[in-house]
Amino acid sequence: MATKDKPLEGLKVIDFTRVYSGPYCTMMLGDLGAEIIKVERKGLGDDTHFFQPIKGDESGYFAYFNRNKKSLSLDLKDPDAVQIIKDLAKWADVVVENFSPGVVDRLGIGYEDLKAVNPKIIYGSISGFGQTGPYKSKSAYDVICQAMGGYMATTGEKGGKPYKLGPSAVDGAAGIHMSFAILAAVLYREKTGVGQYIDIGMMDTAVSTLENFLVWYTLLGEAPSRNGNCNLGSAPFNTFDSKDGYVAIATGNNRLWSKLCKLMDREELLERPGWETNSSRKEHEYEVDAEVEKWTSQLPTADIVRMCDEVGVPAGSVMEIDEIAADPHVAARDMLVEIDHPLLGPVKYPGNPCKFSETSEFCFERAPLLGEHNDYVLKDILGMSDERIEELKAKDIF
Amino acid sequence: MATKDKPLEGLKVIDFTRVYSGPYCTMMLGDLGAEIIKVERKGLGDDTHFFQPIKGDESGYFAYFNRNKKSLSLDLKDPDAVQIIKDLAKWADVVVENFSPGVVDRLGIGYEDLKAVNPKIIYGSISGFGQTGPYKSKSAYDVICQAMGGYMATTGEKGGKPYKLGPSAVDGAAGIHMSFAILAAVLYREKTGVGQYIDIGMMDTAVSTLENFLVWYTLLGEAPSRNGNCNLGSAPFNTFDSKDGYVAIATGNNRLWSKLCKLMDREELLERPGWETNSSRKEHEYEVDAEVEKWTSQLPTADIVRMCDEVGVPAGSVMEIDEIAADPHVAARDMLVEIDHPLLGPVKYPGNPCKFSETSEFCFERAPLLGEHNDYVLKDILGMSDERIEELKAKDIF
Repeated sequence: MATKDKPLEGLKVIDFTRVYSGPYCTMMLGDLGAEIIKVERKGLGDDTHFFQPIKGDESGYFAYFNRNKKSLSLDLKDPDAVQIIKDLAKWADVVVENFSPGVVDRLGIGYEDLKAVNPKIIYGSISGFGQTGPYKSKSAYDVICQAMGGYMATTGEKGGKPYKLGPSAVDGAAGIHMSFAILAAVLYREKTGVGQYIDIGMMDTAVSTLENFLVWYTLLGEAPSRNGNCNLGSAPFNTFDSKDGYVAIATGNNRLWSKLCKLMDREELLERPGWETNSSRKEHEYEVDAEVEKWTSQLPTADIVRMCDEVGVPAGSVMEIDEIAADPHVAARDMLVEIDHPLLGPVKYPGNPCKFSETSEFCFERAPLLGEHNDYVLKDILGMSDERIEELKAKDIF
Repeated sequence: MATKDKPLEGLKVIDFTRVYSGPYCTMMLGDLGAEIIKVERKGLGDDTHFFQPIKGDESGYFAYFNRNKKSLSLDLKDPDAVQIIKDLAKWADVVVENFSPGVVDRLGIGYEDLKAVNPKIIYGSISGFGQTGPYKSKSAYDVICQAMGGYMATTGEKGGKPYKLGPSAVDGAAGIHMSFAILAAVLYREKTGVGQYIDIGMMDTAVSTLENFLVWYTLLGEAPSRNGNCNLGSAPFNTFDSKDGYVAIATGNNRLWSKLCKLMDREELLERPGWETNSSRKEHEYEVDAEVEKWTSQLPTADIVRMCDEVGVPAGSVMEIDEIAADPHVAARDMLVEIDHPLLGPVKYPGNPCKFSETSEFCFERAPLLGEHNDYVLKDILGMSDERIEELKAKDIF
């Protein structure tokens, strides 16, 4: 009995976000059916209109993260534009922004401004370091938060150069944590009638997603650092050289280690003194991994993965981006969906990873052109007269 | 008018999750006030009771991810235990599990089993590759999904060894996407009365968080790969050697590039032919970065960051885990909170990154001991008689 509904149908969002963290948050809300009015700078729009990949003059970056959204272009420095936002705030349930702390208040569209016209508004702000604390005014891009939040310290070879994750991982983490927090606030408001302000700092979400690295230090007093692709607690659990590339193999317990030894035809390793447990193998990791690599280095990655799959040992190849795009599982999971666009044509974009049994009729609408929905917002949502719209257009605020 | 409420107060969750992805999901729900009944294997409990860091016999890994939860220990292979779960499902709003696909159905506690007793139940499953598609039966740990989902392909030096992010980043991403999806389903049920099943695959969440890497390929036909710490579209935007370590500096536009050149006392670089725009500097990235590194390599990281902060150029040091633990901003943001525990004593754990204006009175309760809340569940929730409880205890199912 799948319905055509989406889970967030009816939720109304004013979206001031730009670039990645905020747009990922509102893309998640929009994919699930929320109505998103993206407010963009008059003339230029979101910075990502100029972000690669660009084809012709049109950005695939913008087109990906802004699907299922409507675009209102405005000169927010004009008092009439601020009034339009205040009128829109009466209609909205949620506002999301990711300007530097203080900017929305200076523009007159901060939490207190919009709460004054809609006391039940839920207002979410994403920033590099949050709205409080000694670094609140510090400028940030994702790489700064990967550096300061522990992602880089823990990635790369032991004693070697620290690496960031290629994609802007902290932007993504901050975005989805905000999507979650907004829905929690909506549920709270359903029960109590009380709206509220939500403050998410990117560095905080990095700290929140360090798994056991921080607790290792606070509990044991030793600070773990980067150490290649191995695991803090188990071995063999790493990437290994194969005949034609790399292969990841992970044995998190004795059962899997035993299966792997049988597969390698090295059952005598199960008897090796000091290699009896996860933790003791981890202590002898260098020797353990060397034995595994003796085997993997003789075989192509695809053969190793197939053999491991057959016996249930977790293994995988390091798939490059073009391999992921062509992967049958990615296709079967609808994780690449084609969306047409008047300027870009049909292009495949990542789908939504949340699969709902009753409400996953994800119908992805293309990203809007800049200001494409100005008339819709002014007339259909705000009920503004044609005369007033003409007056405002003459003032050149759109 | 901050209240003492938490946003998810009243939401009732049966939690079969183990290790990281699922427990992160339910930690997020529990931090925000949901009541979490964690069902653990009789005798052994969650695997992470044996995961490092361990002090005495007690795991800091378990203690971190299972705060604010109650523990019910059960032998799920016993029919009486399955009946307890079915009775509990009548009380619950939400069930979350991260067994391999098929396991919960074999145990008799799958979606169809629990929907039969509570048609409005919301049931979330996290697995490596989801419940459908050619890889659904493939075994996974986070590292396998970092390898197959594009995280590793995009991390490390150009043409060099691919790296995983140190922490299990895809586990974390899958967990928080599930927390979000569950709340969307709860909101949908509030409106329609309809519960549902949610299927999240870890590889899917990796694909969903690749920023512009996949779209680059689908739009332009070139597959971007790893390329050190640089950015796909801008320069200088990288980590640089300093006199005593590394420093991340990111200029995403001409305004920041101009500020940086002034700071380096190299304003003539602003006139360098071919270096006028973000994209053109990116084309000459090697030369551009070399000029920046001439400056950074002469100065200690702390001085560079201070100088950049003063003029608003995004910059940061690569903070090691002990530096993060001692950082004043992390403390000011409550991102390390002390929780006492009868066996571990007082230990600091990462806080919650979602800061709510009205409902952030996060009171972190310590993680439970195995089976600590058996009587609470049987008596207070299920209203079972003392006699029946004694009968079941005699059968040794707890």
